[in-house]
Amino acid sequence: MKTLVIVSHPDISGSSSQKYLKDSFPQSEALTYHHLETIYPDGKIDTKQEQRLLKEHDRIILQFPFYWYSSPAMLKQWLDDVLAEGFAYGPRGTALKGKELGLVLIIGAAEKEYQVGGREGFTISALTTPYQAMAKKLQMTFLKPFLIYQFQYMNEQEKMRLLIGYQQYLAIHDFDSLRAKERWYLEQLSQLNETYLPENSGFILEQIEEFIIDTRMELDEIQMYLDGTS
Amino acid sequence: MKTLVIVSHPDISGSSSQKYLKDSFPQSEALTYHHLETIYPDGKIDTKQEQRLLKEHDRIILQFPFYWYSSPAMLKQWLDDVLAEGFAYGPRGTALKGKELGLVLIIGAAEKEYQVGGREGFTISALTTPYQAMAKKLQMTFLKPFLIYQFQYMNEQEKMRLLIGYQQYLAIHDFDSLRAKERWYLEQLSQLNETYLPENSGFILEQIEEFIIDTRMELDEIQMYLDGTS
Repeated sequence: MKTLVIVSHPDISGSSSQKYLKDSFPQSEALTYHHLETIYPDGKIDTKQEQRLLKEHDRIILQFPFYWYSSPAMLKQWLDDVLAEGFAYGPRGTALKGKELGLVLIIGAAEKEYQVGGREGFTISALTTPYQAMAKKLQMTFLKPFLIYQFQYMNEQEKMRLLIGYQQYLAIHDFDSLRAKERWYLEQLSQLNETYLPENSGFILEQIEEFIIDTRMELDEIQMYLDGTS
Repeated sequence: MKTLVIVSHPDISGSSSQKYLKDSFPQSEALTYHHLETIYPDGKIDTKQEQRLLKEHDRIILQFPFYWYSSPAMLKQWLDDVLAEGFAYGPRGTALKGKELGLVLIIGAAEKEYQVGGREGFTISALTTPYQAMAKKLQMTFLKPFLIYQFQYMNEQEKMRLLIGYQQYLAIHDFDSLRAKERWYLEQLSQLNETYLPENSGFILEQIEEFIIDTRMELDEIQMYLDGTS
């Protein structure tokens, strides 16, 4: 699976959250980081090139600050130019059919404000309706959005946890399943083993790996038992 | 009441609907037509000037083609630049408080597609949630949107009816009430009388005027009767 992350932010170096995600973006042939304002500083989009890029990827992620409950103007221009009739929709426009559409939203307000009675008053599910309708028209699968609330108040541990969730959102096919996450952690562990590690750390990591595998076997046995009795 | 119509369209002369609304826009000190792409061809918005304009008006209308269930990029840039914290929201940002926010949407698909099971699959009420949330944050009253579906298929009579509804949406305080519409029609009639009219037309118009007034009196009597017996 190849993932394209289309980032829109008018001043990425001035945004601590965008900078954090960019600086820790995994080096992988399966992941493409694509910041529109850097690539098109004059705002003129190469539609054909963008359409080629879309075709080469399976999961398309739109990553942006949630300005006025929508994207910055640059990404809106991109949607209007690139997702054209005949390419993305309409009788002969099926280039994105069957692909996945995800959102990574950087949100300034607190999660609790996005509900009735909250200061924002509407849910993220309601506010992202235009993107859901777009996915429907493009015949894409709309993924559960990845929401980053109030990055500025996160401590180091919360930021690390965010980063893991973000990388899983980009890379894992079924990113919400426990089994898929296990596999991803095991992959990360095996990659770690290849690099230099302080004394004993290698052994500890092997133990963790075994522990994850054992837990999975136990979960599978419980599942088999439940399936047999149901 | 002063109304500001903020229009966004990248190519207004190529849009028959926008051209129709522009060419027939009423000459009135109470109505301001403001096409962003004409005023700012280089895309650079004079934020202070726009904020002054907003302050001078009571009803703010955003008029645009409903591209990907949202506005063109130019209007999005305008929202992000002009509706700034400290001016439009936040502890000291109350410049728009108590004013009205309306939408005039030019929509290519048919009305029946905007429902579950329809080709678009979502209602206009759901798709415009971001604008409703914005009105809430700005402490503005959100007006029922004025929706223009499939202008290209309208005949002359439908276009005339559209124009009357549009002008009422811009000018009438309580644009959905029968009483307010009556008053507006009477005003239009009295303005007509001042200009040259073919023989007998003046008399016919006077008759129509009297008829509207008589109907209103009868309605009021019925209302009084109902109020007395309830």
